[in-house]
Amino acid sequence: MPVLRSGSQIPLRPAEPTQADAGTRIGRIPLSSPRPAAPDPRFRPSAFSGEAVPFQVTAFREGHDLIGVHVRLTSPSGAESLHRLEPLRDGFDRWRTVVAPIEQGVWTFRFEAFADDVATWQHAADLKIAAGVDTALMREIGARLFTEAATQKDRGAAQIRALIAAAATLRDGDASDDDALAVVRDPELAAFFRERPLRSLLTVGPDLELLVERERAGVGAWYEFFPRSEGAKRRKDGTVRSGTFRTAAQRLPGVAGMGFDVVYLPPIHPIGRINRKGRNNTLDAQPGDPGSPYAIGAVEGGHDAILPELGSPADFRWFVRQAQAQGLEVALDLALQAAPDHPWVTEHTEWFTTLPDGSIAYAENPPKKYQDIYPLNFDIDPAGIYAEMLRIVRHWIAQGVKIFRVDNPHTKPLQFWEWLIATVNADDPDVIFLSEAFTRPAVMRSLAMAGFQQSYSYFTWRNTKAELEEFLQSISDETADFMRPNLFVNTHDILTEYLQYGGRPAYKIRAAIAATGGATYGVYAGYELYENVARPGSEENIDNEKYEFKFREWEQAEADGDSLAPYLRRLNEIRRQHPALRQLRGLKVHWSDDDAILVYSKHIDGALTASGESDTIIVVANVDPHSMRQTMVHLDTTVWGVPRGWEYEVEDLITGAVWTWNQDAFVRLDAFVEPVHILHVRKRP
Amino acid sequence: MPVLRSGSQIPLRPAEPTQADAGTRIGRIPLSSPRPAAPDPRFRPSAFSGEAVPFQVTAFREGHDLIGVHVRLTSPSGAESLHRLEPLRDGFDRWRTVVAPIEQGVWTFRFEAFADDVATWQHAADLKIAAGVDTALMREIGARLFTEAATQKDRGAAQIRALIAAAATLRDGDASDDDALAVVRDPELAAFFRERPLRSLLTVGPDLELLVERERAGVGAWYEFFPRSEGAKRRKDGTVRSGTFRTAAQRLPGVAGMGFDVVYLPPIHPIGRINRKGRNNTLDAQPGDPGSPYAIGAVEGGHDAILPELGSPADFRWFVRQAQAQGLEVALDLALQAAPDHPWVTEHTEWFTTLPDGSIAYAENPPKKYQDIYPLNFDIDPAGIYAEMLRIVRHWIAQGVKIFRVDNPHTKPLQFWEWLIATVNADDPDVIFLSEAFTRPAVMRSLAMAGFQQSYSYFTWRNTKAELEEFLQSISDETADFMRPNLFVNTHDILTEYLQYGGRPAYKIRAAIAATGGATYGVYAGYELYENVARPGSEENIDNEKYEFKFREWEQAEADGDSLAPYLRRLNEIRRQHPALRQLRGLKVHWSDDDAILVYSKHIDGALTASGESDTIIVVANVDPHSMRQTMVHLDTTVWGVPRGWEYEVEDLITGAVWTWNQDAFVRLDAFVEPVHILHVRKRP
Repeated sequence: MPVLRSGSQIPLRPAEPTQADAGTRIGRIPLSSPRPAAPDPRFRPSAFSGEAVPFQVTAFREGHDLIGVHVRLTSPSGAESLHRLEPLRDGFDRWRTVVAPIEQGVWTFRFEAFADDVATWQHAADLKIAAGVDTALMREIGARLFTEAATQKDRGAAQIRALIAAAATLRDGDASDDDALAVVRDPELAAFFRERPLRSLLTVGPDLELLVERERAGVGAWYEFFPRSEGAKRRKDGTVRSGTFRTAAQRLPGVAGMGFDVVYLPPIHPIGRINRKGRNNTLDAQPGDPGSPYAIGAVEGGHDAILPELGSPADFRWFVRQAQAQGLEVALDLALQAAPDHPWVTEHTEWFTTLPDGSIAYAENPPKKYQDIYPLNFDIDPAGIYAEMLRIVRHWIAQGVKIFRVDNPHTKPLQFWEWLIATVNADDPDVIFLSEAFTRPAVMRSLAMAGFQQSYSYFTWRNTKAELEEFLQSISDETADFMRPNLFVNTHDILTEYLQYGGRPAYKIRAAIAATGGATYGVYAGYELYENVARPGSEENIDNEKYEFKFREWEQAEADGDSLAPYLRRLNEIRRQHPALRQLRGLKVHWSDDDAILVYSKHIDGALTASGESDTIIVVANVDPHSMRQTMVHLDTTVWGVPRGWEYEVEDLITGAVWTWNQDAFVRLDAFVEPVHILHVRKRP
Repeated sequence: MPVLRSGSQIPLRPAEPTQADAGTRIGRIPLSSPRPAAPDPRFRPSAFSGEAVPFQVTAFREGHDLIGVHVRLTSPSGAESLHRLEPLRDGFDRWRTVVAPIEQGVWTFRFEAFADDVATWQHAADLKIAAGVDTALMREIGARLFTEAATQKDRGAAQIRALIAAAATLRDGDASDDDALAVVRDPELAAFFRERPLRSLLTVGPDLELLVERERAGVGAWYEFFPRSEGAKRRKDGTVRSGTFRTAAQRLPGVAGMGFDVVYLPPIHPIGRINRKGRNNTLDAQPGDPGSPYAIGAVEGGHDAILPELGSPADFRWFVRQAQAQGLEVALDLALQAAPDHPWVTEHTEWFTTLPDGSIAYAENPPKKYQDIYPLNFDIDPAGIYAEMLRIVRHWIAQGVKIFRVDNPHTKPLQFWEWLIATVNADDPDVIFLSEAFTRPAVMRSLAMAGFQQSYSYFTWRNTKAELEEFLQSISDETADFMRPNLFVNTHDILTEYLQYGGRPAYKIRAAIAATGGATYGVYAGYELYENVARPGSEENIDNEKYEFKFREWEQAEADGDSLAPYLRRLNEIRRQHPALRQLRGLKVHWSDDDAILVYSKHIDGALTASGESDTIIVVANVDPHSMRQTMVHLDTTVWGVPRGWEYEVEDLITGAVWTWNQDAFVRLDAFVEPVHILHVRKRP
């Protein structure tokens, strides 16, 4: 396994003498605004293994002389490499190359800028010799540069011969100016100097860090289900026998068969009996109501215990192994709050807020109260509470869990998360925490910077073309250095208006965009059954599974043609086959003439993929679930290396149709047939 | 003189115990993205004395409890003050207050966030007591907080009595819940706690710096003229007798009378004779052609010498004193380059680039050459060249000059400027450097961060409504923490298409926007005479004054009604009368329904002005110099404290007309009469 993939790597050269320090903050060649970078300079940026990461910096020098910029990477194991950046040529003095680090851990990188004397000479000599200005001078300057280059240490014999021959031609009085120009323009010499430039005024930026985490931190398809519903049986007397880990495991082949990577379970702990919530969040639970699994803790135990109805600890470990055998990872919910009958409440009253009347404060949003839950108070005994939370996480890690979906992290102190995640990852860098925060941008971004490997996002509420364009551009560039969104299409708490009223086409559209727009997405069970009835006036499903059992007939629905499962299966298959879709970055929004036709592409260069093949996907989605739309789309084909105006082939990976496209193409998308093209670009022979 | 002005200052309190450090980068209450700040964290932000500076930070805490944010300022002399920030209430967790520092030097500031327990209680108690929920509890919690507040150190006797009385009412079983609610909502108690909140979970951000420079660094009206033209006489034989400092001084009353603050002179040094340029930048100077003053250096001396035709060093010092007596500061040009006959060329050949043929390299942009100028090479003998440049600057400082307009700083190493400006300002912080760089954004911004007090800007090329809106918003907010644009309407090298073809209205429009859109602006002599004929195919005046003498009849033109001088005089008078116009920030762009009607306001609160009066100016400009436009404008009147829909009076400071306006107003601007309203807002009694 290589430590990285790159199309810009050049021969490593040892550290060279740098420009003497003038005692200034600015170096001889100013370097600024490096990326990857978190917006808050206290935090390091991050990437996942195999992610195509743009390394960018602003660099310029005074006057007209040309510069070059390198980035020097050091992998966690100490492997060093050097890469040449390209100017973006946009007038912003921005330089860029893309490298895909593979080795996990903390990388260091630094930018190195230098005066590119050969390039400066080539530019001037080309113009001046052609114009008959200073030709002798230009030839002599070139000869001196080539001679200098020939004397440097890491040259091969053939290279030295070529350089000396070029110098000789330039100095040869019998050689014409056309001969000299041929040397100036020689592509082989140019290629040589691109790899081994003469570097003067070398200026080295600071050492920066990039945390590279395992691939699953950034790439994956998640499936959420409540284990108590899978295998639950209604008895003749109307009561329900809960599903167990043993029965729920029977659902795993179905989930794996759809191509998901992660199975996420809501809390599996004992559920409080005091003030237990009934169906549809009512205050009067009836006998047999199982209660919300988020009201954690009862006489049977707290966050390190398992609800007896689900099985034993051994059953849970067996369930995890069953999942692993199917290629699935299990993600647990980490909901740090307590039911009134949680053991903490009596054993550690100091972890809660005691009111003047001696009662413990419920969670509330005044004047509303949530009487089945006590929030933790982190400020009375921080050391004790930190240690307990760490103990719980480590307990579940010991049971085989490496992914935690963290419930409402924005209701706990941010510095607690920074501490917890850093402490856990110091022992085991493979542990992944997903932030379930639906709140203000500053809070969501801070949680990501503080260490969360993944974040829920605003995706569910971004449904129009304009909203999605802005959203996809933001996640794939602006925030990609520090935040990895998990594009859940629904959750057990979120059933958006778009899904409530968009019919089956809406379910297809949202799944297709989620699966291709980010690198990680998720589905909550029932999505494939088009469950779209909301509790009146709310944005969640009626008869929310949080408060009751659900009985679903997966196979029957599929047999009846009433399931989205085949479509999800195909989406996940396409994701596995196309490395471009396993990237967060590299997304480009293209133009369409219709206000409901969203167009974007994802591209990865062959130098950055395991196969060595480039991969390009174009997604064209009709985001209006109620109509047929037809329009022209206008594509910047240069993104995938096709010059403007040239033709190329696209294959619709959903229907198999193949078309020859150009920079402009006609599309017709009927929401009731196939609302989304997922097109693979095939260059023409 | 106070060290600052502020509307948010609260009683200073000593440092308090802060939340214990959890070993994390994030504090208990996260604080991030502080402003003022330069985008490159290596540099400190800056302001000018009297500038209304927004202090902003992002702060939030977990959950719903309320927080407060203070900023603690320490002036260069050690005066400490505390200010309360307001939430912007925009969903971005951004907090803000505006302070106008007055004392010059390096200030420090730090943000302090805290849990505002009283505010949290007030919010909950207000809702819960009104709803009859937990009333006894809410009353007891409030009583405890008030009692705690009464015991703190810095309370006066009256305050203590009020707090104890409030606590007693809350605890009094005979007092009704309405009585309790009256305490919760008591505005005097609220005001007390705004000034003296109970602060818990106190979290202190890092110490940050703000450089405050003298007012002229940010505010001023500049006038450029060539002293050799002022008093130049054409002899009978056609040759010209140059103007001198003595004759040029006769122009000073005219410049001062127009209300300008700074007189800027192009280089006054001996002009090279080798390869001297003739009229209109021709290569064959004729006898009597004075040459470009930018071709500096000849047998008479270099950058520390004076062109003998202009007078003696004593004459120059006299000129500076004459200007000072008129209230004008003299700005000199600092053009670090040499004519081929500059003494440096023979005495310090190592400061230039010697080519393989033994010649010294001219300035060039291949294949073009500029044969009257040798650029300096800073890399052969940096120490020698740095010392010489410092010596020259100090020489002119000793002659009474404190402002330098730096020619083409982007053709010299950026780190040289950082070093030079820091070194000069360490001795004399009143010295101001203006960066004459018209180049790429990254370079211009880096020069500003490196230390230049002022910068030329893209203003001359921003002429449409949309361009100006973007430009004005950018300079007044995005870049205002580190860059102060000098909005020159023209220069001796820039005569834009807009001025060439816009007729006299264009001159008025541009002057009015320059004088009101930024805080510093400038005019090059001849602008008031509407000199608008360009050298064909170029963007500069024909018969450029750089290469010849100009003969202008200032008074005659004004007497004939052919001068913009009266308008410029009025603009500068308005600037002196209105503190809002001496601010870079505080600009707001408003809407108009016409694509050529630009509308913006500038406002400063009375707490921040010397007079204690608020000041608001609305500028409405028809930027189409060829037409009459009429339209509706739509104003956010809350910027100047007028509720939406309320009426207020505006007075046109150009024509004296007075109107009653609302949030919507009709305007009619005839480019040929008065293209620009400059309106002073007067609230209605």
